[in-house]
Amino acid sequence: MSSSIGENIRLTIFGESHGKAVGMTLEGIPAGLRLDMEALQRFLDRRAPGRSDASTARREADKPEFLSGVKDGTVTGSPIAAVIRNTDTRSGDYESLRTVPRPGHADYTAQVKYFGHQDAAGGGHFSGRLTAPLCIAGGICLQLLAREGIRVLSRIAAIGGVEDEGDLTVSTADRDFPTVSEERGQAMLAAIREAKAAGDSLGGIVECAVLGLPAGLGDPIFGGMENRIAALTFGIPAVKGVDFGAGFAAAGMRGSEHNDPFTLKDGQVVTAANRAGGILGGITTGMPLRFRAAVKPTPSIAMPQHTLDLASGKETTLQIAGRHDPCIVPRAVPCVEAAAALAVTDALLGRRKERS
Amino acid sequence: MSSSIGENIRLTIFGESHGKAVGMTLEGIPAGLRLDMEALQRFLDRRAPGRSDASTARREADKPEFLSGVKDGTVTGSPIAAVIRNTDTRSGDYESLRTVPRPGHADYTAQVKYFGHQDAAGGGHFSGRLTAPLCIAGGICLQLLAREGIRVLSRIAAIGGVEDEGDLTVSTADRDFPTVSEERGQAMLAAIREAKAAGDSLGGIVECAVLGLPAGLGDPIFGGMENRIAALTFGIPAVKGVDFGAGFAAAGMRGSEHNDPFTLKDGQVVTAANRAGGILGGITTGMPLRFRAAVKPTPSIAMPQHTLDLASGKETTLQIAGRHDPCIVPRAVPCVEAAAALAVTDALLGRRKERS
Amino acid sequence: MSSSIGENIRLTIFGESHGKAVGMTLEGIPAGLRLDMEALQRFLDRRAPGRSDASTARREADKPEFLSGVKDGTVTGSPIAAVIRNTDTRSGDYESLRTVPRPGHADYTAQVKYFGHQDAAGGGHFSGRLTAPLCIAGGICLQLLAREGIRVLSRIAAIGGVEDEGDLTVSTADRDFPTVSEERGQAMLAAIREAKAAGDSLGGIVECAVLGLPAGLGDPIFGGMENRIAALTFGIPAVKGVDFGAGFAAAGMRGSEHNDPFTLKDGQVVTAANRAGGILGGITTGMPLRFRAAVKPTPSIAMPQHTLDLASGKETTLQIAGRHDPCIVPRAVPCVEAAAALAVTDALLGRRKERS
Amino acid sequence: MSSSIGENIRLTIFGESHGKAVGMTLEGIPAGLRLDMEALQRFLDRRAPGRSDASTARREADKPEFLSGVKDGTVTGSPIAAVIRNTDTRSGDYESLRTVPRPGHADYTAQVKYFGHQDAAGGGHFSGRLTAPLCIAGGICLQLLAREGIRVLSRIAAIGGVEDEGDLTVSTADRDFPTVSEERGQAMLAAIREAKAAGDSLGGIVECAVLGLPAGLGDPIFGGMENRIAALTFGIPAVKGVDFGAGFAAAGMRGSEHNDPFTLKDGQVVTAANRAGGILGGITTGMPLRFRAAVKPTPSIAMPQHTLDLASGKETTLQIAGRHDPCIVPRAVPCVEAAAALAVTDALLGRRKERS
Repeated sequence: MSSSIGENIRLTIFGESHGKAVGMTLEGIPAGLRLDMEALQRFLDRRAPGRSDASTARREADKPEFLSGVKDGTVTGSPIAAVIRNTDTRSGDYESLRTVPRPGHADYTAQVKYFGHQDAAGGGHFSGRLTAPLCIAGGICLQLLAREGIRVLSRIAAIGGVEDEGDLTVSTADRDFPTVSEERGQAMLAAIREAKAAGDSLGGIVECAVLGLPAGLGDPIFGGMENRIAALTFGIPAVKGVDFGAGFAAAGMRGSEHNDPFTLKDGQVVTAANRAGGILGGITTGMPLRFRAAVKPTPSIAMPQHTLDLASGKETTLQIAGRHDPCIVPRAVPCVEAAAALAVTDALLGRRKERS
Repeated sequence: MSSSIGENIRLTIFGESHGKAVGMTLEGIPAGLRLDMEALQRFLDRRAPGRSDASTARREADKPEFLSGVKDGTVTGSPIAAVIRNTDTRSGDYESLRTVPRPGHADYTAQVKYFGHQDAAGGGHFSGRLTAPLCIAGGICLQLLAREGIRVLSRIAAIGGVEDEGDLTVSTADRDFPTVSEERGQAMLAAIREAKAAGDSLGGIVECAVLGLPAGLGDPIFGGMENRIAALTFGIPAVKGVDFGAGFAAAGMRGSEHNDPFTLKDGQVVTAANRAGGILGGITTGMPLRFRAAVKPTPSIAMPQHTLDLASGKETTLQIAGRHDPCIVPRAVPCVEAAAALAVTDALLGRRKERS
Repeated sequence: MSSSIGENIRLTIFGESHGKAVGMTLEGIPAGLRLDMEALQRFLDRRAPGRSDASTARREADKPEFLSGVKDGTVTGSPIAAVIRNTDTRSGDYESLRTVPRPGHADYTAQVKYFGHQDAAGGGHFSGRLTAPLCIAGGICLQLLAREGIRVLSRIAAIGGVEDEGDLTVSTADRDFPTVSEERGQAMLAAIREAKAAGDSLGGIVECAVLGLPAGLGDPIFGGMENRIAALTFGIPAVKGVDFGAGFAAAGMRGSEHNDPFTLKDGQVVTAANRAGGILGGITTGMPLRFRAAVKPTPSIAMPQHTLDLASGKETTLQIAGRHDPCIVPRAVPCVEAAAALAVTDALLGRRKERS
Repeated sequence: MSSSIGENIRLTIFGESHGKAVGMTLEGIPAGLRLDMEALQRFLDRRAPGRSDASTARREADKPEFLSGVKDGTVTGSPIAAVIRNTDTRSGDYESLRTVPRPGHADYTAQVKYFGHQDAAGGGHFSGRLTAPLCIAGGICLQLLAREGIRVLSRIAAIGGVEDEGDLTVSTADRDFPTVSEERGQAMLAAIREAKAAGDSLGGIVECAVLGLPAGLGDPIFGGMENRIAALTFGIPAVKGVDFGAGFAAAGMRGSEHNDPFTLKDGQVVTAANRAGGILGGITTGMPLRFRAAVKPTPSIAMPQHTLDLASGKETTLQIAGRHDPCIVPRAVPCVEAAAALAVTDALLGRRKERS
């Protein structure tokens, strides 16, 4: 199994890109949570395609229908199920994927794994479209966390080698193209347009912070916040790396540089710096939890590519015709937030069991 | 819960650094696997302290006693339990950790999480010593994988900013201080000695490769090889980042650079390059699975550090007296291999269920 | 969590009786299983209401829509999701359930558990209607098992104190009102009609057998076939007891009576009798797996009942107006088969991991 | 896997009857629980053999050694591990079990399941001795529950067809041979002695009640208290049936007889009777939770039995020489309490997550 995760809440994601629907079930959200459906829709809209020239022209409203677990806008306590119907499906574009796998896509591995029975169109269950139900679940968790004073923020830290400048703040996260430096954001957009014109694509880095966390969330060893967040974040197709706090940069530091000294601030135990990314021993320190996700360049590119025709065993040139994002990093931003929100909610509810 | 992981095999790790013992239970290893106990011990010895001047002087043999699940060297099918008694415990060194938390350690977060009831000595359940049972479990899996023609290799890719050169090969992995370039290895050792002399510590990067994997292992979304390996690897204390294939570097690439073209080699479907690290859509491609783990510098350093006395609420200077590794990267190498072996074994056994 | 179960396959059930839909997700069914949708519908029809005067007049077609995981009638390997829309909902009948809980129903406990936020109409997530998605999942498993030569059969062993006679056979199970003795079946139907006329209801016992099982399925201790089947069967509302083989009668036997002697038959190891119900140490022996489920009388009865008005704190008399089965035992039969099929499929797939 | 269970606490049981040790790990017990080790030992002593002529002469102290998770008698929060060394092992008695399986035992099924690699002596991992670690875990939970005002009681409801009389009360449960009617208890003991003299054995029924439970514990569908308790109780070897409240007797009742009317008592919502066994819709009502476990007669009997020699394929007569309980029902009593305590603790901690 694979499409389920969580210990104190449990998310299952189902659906195929060009099947009838994508959807999710989410168990364990406490009864009585009042959902702001408009806020949830705004969150989903951040992931939806077609918002800028950085994204695919495929247009789908991504309006979830709640089948259970929510009544008159309030969580009932029983499993929440929501589906998004697929409307703009064009299976014809994808007929050949079984025999001519697209480089960088899961076409070949899906073929092997499912012995040729996979629903290949549009990547099927491996499609980025499966992040829509992830965002439904994450969006519900964001509302639960907000009630506890916890906020999840993100920014685009880099695209195509262009790095953002400055520190992630609340105001950054509200932007449509969330960079701290507007000028760097413009440079990223220019790079995306240039890559698109060349029939190519770009990768990038999303940085995420969770503010307002109490100390004491998470578990030692395999239940650490790093493990939980990574296990969810790698569920976003195209994420190929996750690090926390100083992360990979920590590998080049000395202990005297990396250790965050404990101190008091307004009567609270804090650390003077936050190289640990708010996590020590897997457990939150109460400082902002910070992590980054590396997003590979969109594998679907317009320029011709070499690949193999599995039927003939001959090499061939593939030209992908569909509509594709030249850079999915902007759309990955809410997905990373959703992953973080799910992991934090799971740990937060788990924490309630531990009171002695 | 936290100290358990796995879907088709199930590992539970228990113990505290200065308690009676550390140990593990491992369920799901198929009956009949013949264990080479000497090979297992050699694997554990790679993790044990005291092998070089890079590591702590604390000396413990790390000889596991198998309590169940193994009879006359063969796996019986019922849960395997093994313990390593703690012999060289010096609780006195750690008396003050409850009130004066060491920067970069889990002392403070453990205190909050367990409401002051944690076994604080030596980091308790958060100690690096808990990687010994991880290596018992991983060492068993390595033997299972070897029978299937699967090999797990690692090297030290960087320490203290000194990077290794060349490509990881089988011969590299057999070295005591596993770098490809012996000269770079010497430079790393020199950097460690220098940091030690300064009362400081260094971090680094471990690179791991799994060879001989069939295509088709792993699951979409949350059960991907990336998710599984990350969830296990972040269980090693001090790991702060994990990436796969080109990883964080992929964020700066174009699709045309990053996509690995499919081709045939000796009648097998392969990719001409391996930026994907052997994983597409979470599923193995059959190419070597490659990932890196970023290890932070050892938080225990000899030089005085600022921290807070939680009892008095006053800042204080802490001088850590115990014996500590100036760089744990060499000892982390087998731990990363253990994590990889566990994840791959879990996926490999899971794959057997899928035959249609 | 609660509405999920399974180790090698994973079932999640969602929905409320009078909400938009009930449904299920099912992960882990191997790709390539060809589903006979008409056979599945016939199986679901056995559970559906309105087939005889023993059941409620509420009429719903129980036609599942498959949203994912099945393409052109073949399982794709990714999660299967199916929903049944609720069409014949009459919420008005149930307005008062929050304050005047029906005896024998979950109205009061749901109210406490969900702090008043439950979807109360028709029992919500606690309704017998939730066995429809159980039967979708179980029906899929029955087809998987049939391919392996495994058959699940049931009969009504007793209703309202009238006991069936003779032994369960394949031909029995095909009947509409599955008793071995037709005459006893008539007596049961007469008892149901009599109870209905009196505004009362009857309970009964369902007996189930699984034929064609290989020896070696199941696990020791908590993964035994008894544990697995019981954990699923108690998921059917109204089941209050489960026993295996001689079951409760074994408590009155001597060892010399209860022990089944091993012997050979057609070159196979069998037992001369089957008091063990085909399970020893939690593991299948290869003999028919036999168990019984005790079903309580339908709590919804037409005659006036004493209960409490939670709002006023006063006792009151409740007269339930809706349409209700005077005896749900006949409709429970396919549900018990579904539970058995799910448990056996889970164990069967798990068995594949164990080959050494 | 099999030997692990639990959602909010997680128990893993390991060991073989005649291996080095039996033991358990238990995760999720909140830090700070002060354990009364003498009370725990008294609880374990109730399960230990050799207390009366009803039990085997094998004598083992069953003194657990806590390896982790408990410091100075207080739960630390990290996984609890405890082992009991096997001292009185006589492997010689069991040499022939691989080829001449004992009727009613798991010898044959273990052989099939583990492809002949099982540790056969004394039943290995299938031995009743594995209930010792179950009782360690259950005994810890009993102490946790006691702090919440929850008490678990049991009695022997029947042995060898002799039924107890009267209702289970607190005073009953404290008895060495816990029956309500002392005279019936004497009759049971006489029946056991008589069976023993005949080289035979007896089964029986254990009845268990949990008092002081709040309403609202447990979950709908598969997480009901029935499912949880059954999944644990069937983990006790020899249990072949579990029912709740009126249980199998409910099958013969009418709705008007079985439904428990709601009423008020001392300002609390209660039911006037308790045919539901304190559970509606899987959720506790606040009334005593009542269930029964049917225990089959000890399969090891002294009289000669027919069985098969798997090596020769010939039928043979088996005479079991070891020391065996003529009736294990008295020793099953604390095991049933342990199973109940584990299930209730799991649900109780889970309940904390649900506060909205």
